[in-house]
Amino acid sequence: MAVLLSTKAHTMQDWKAALLAVDPSLEIRLFPEAGAPEDIEAAVVWTAHDMMELRRYPNLKVIVSMGAGVDHLFRPPGPPPGVPVARLVDTRLTQGMTEWVLLNVLRFHRQDPDYRDQQARKVWFELPAPETSARRIGILGLGELGSDAARALRALGFPVMGWSRRPKQVDGVETFHGADGLVAMAAKADMLVCLLPLTPETRGVIDAKLLGAMKPGGFLINAARGGHQVAADVLAALDSGHLAGAALDVFEPEPLPADSPFWSHPKVILTPHAASITIPSSAAPQVVENIHRARDGRPLINLVDFSAGY
Amino acid sequence: MAVLLSTKAHTMQDWKAALLAVDPSLEIRLFPEAGAPEDIEAAVVWTAHDMMELRRYPNLKVIVSMGAGVDHLFRPPGPPPGVPVARLVDTRLTQGMTEWVLLNVLRFHRQDPDYRDQQARKVWFELPAPETSARRIGILGLGELGSDAARALRALGFPVMGWSRRPKQVDGVETFHGADGLVAMAAKADMLVCLLPLTPETRGVIDAKLLGAMKPGGFLINAARGGHQVAADVLAALDSGHLAGAALDVFEPEPLPADSPFWSHPKVILTPHAASITIPSSAAPQVVENIHRARDGRPLINLVDFSAGY
Repeated sequence: MAVLLSTKAHTMQDWKAALLAVDPSLEIRLFPEAGAPEDIEAAVVWTAHDMMELRRYPNLKVIVSMGAGVDHLFRPPGPPPGVPVARLVDTRLTQGMTEWVLLNVLRFHRQDPDYRDQQARKVWFELPAPETSARRIGILGLGELGSDAARALRALGFPVMGWSRRPKQVDGVETFHGADGLVAMAAKADMLVCLLPLTPETRGVIDAKLLGAMKPGGFLINAARGGHQVAADVLAALDSGHLAGAALDVFEPEPLPADSPFWSHPKVILTPHAASITIPSSAAPQVVENIHRARDGRPLINLVDFSAGY
Repeated sequence: MAVLLSTKAHTMQDWKAALLAVDPSLEIRLFPEAGAPEDIEAAVVWTAHDMMELRRYPNLKVIVSMGAGVDHLFRPPGPPPGVPVARLVDTRLTQGMTEWVLLNVLRFHRQDPDYRDQQARKVWFELPAPETSARRIGILGLGELGSDAARALRALGFPVMGWSRRPKQVDGVETFHGADGLVAMAAKADMLVCLLPLTPETRGVIDAKLLGAMKPGGFLINAARGGHQVAADVLAALDSGHLAGAALDVFEPEPLPADSPFWSHPKVILTPHAASITIPSSAAPQVVENIHRARDGRPLINLVDFSAGY
């Protein structure tokens, strides 16, 4: 069997080396040099790979998507019918995301934008002490990423709430579910952190209604997908002062066009979809595990559930 | 007995209320309205209170300093001879400091200054993924504050080292001590975090020698006292590029004069001695406990050790 590898050009060799370090016997073909289509039994692809293209490989047994989010797979035409898709559930990916969330929660909690502004104006003035136990964080999404962020925020002493589609229990976290639960959580939250999968149900979830349910002076943190936020509603909430700040890693489209008002908005902290980055050496073992499982006809790990959408 | 309270004017009433909430029977006199000097048996004072002034009270049994650092007490003339001094060991004070340290470690770790710069220039570019397990943090000081920061950084996956004057064991932390240990730790550190007490031995500890021992491209984080850093040496290390950045909460003198180059240095993140702020309601119970203990002739908690200097 051969493995088709398709990712950003500058990371292709790193991925190849990482996969071979786990199983030197793999025959890896770097897209677009796929060779004979019937050789390809596994495809390891990043989000931008054309799903139509994968229909060229008649013996394809598994597609491994190189990230946690798989919303791109659900866009038409979708993956070839009957081919199972696995995503990455990587502790390093989770760790990176939790770091980015903590950085931005602490940034807003500790009035850092105000202190940056004071430094620029050479103002020595101690702002009122923030109370960690009174800064209520609401996390949208309680999967791998949301649960880990919740755990880390709780460990720092923040009261943490979490929302998911279906009812869920997370230790020490006040949980909410369903459409009513979402508004109820937002009403109690000083900061909302979005770590949801992007599905037809969650698209546009961060809209005027949700933001309007928050108390004035709250903060928005989105590290999930640009499709979760209605850009005009977020900008309006920032401009009216209802939102005191937003940290955004994701946009639609990406790269964010130069004329987007997010770039220069004084209340926006922007990163270029860099909240969490897959590191080949960390992710390779589970990718190879799934290649082996597909070859041997065993059940995959981290299988994407096409009925749930993630 | 009466209690003399002396702190910043705008926090005086908060402190009085917090102390009375714990013990409504306390007779609290707000400096400078001390009344008859012989009434005063306890003094609760902030760092700027004149120690010479405290010699006016012949029956003074205890001085409670309203902060973690007590270096100001050791400056001549020092507290009245024979009067014990207690400092605050407050979980909220510790929590605030750990938050500030985490914010700045994560800021530098996650290349945030570079991403702020990219945002200002509307550049969409993902920087190489940082490796948490390869970012070695060296903490100067393993007391209440240093130990808690070490614990929190370890929990995030950073390798943590710690230095103290005397040999010390901290779970999961590679420890160093003495003058040789300090340079040895700096040589292995990607970031140095200063949380030391200020004593004659630790004054100026962050100097050209210590910074020179670090690898190029490291970061300095100081939330202890301005007296720990030799300002000219820190600026030289930043200007040469040997230090990639510094987060500084403390300076000498404070407020930092407007002509200090720290204000506008592009590699300096500055806060106005706001890393951790004593919250009266959180600190009041232990202050009142020490007032009671002094009244009853029982041993104080959090007694300052004048031979050690903290």
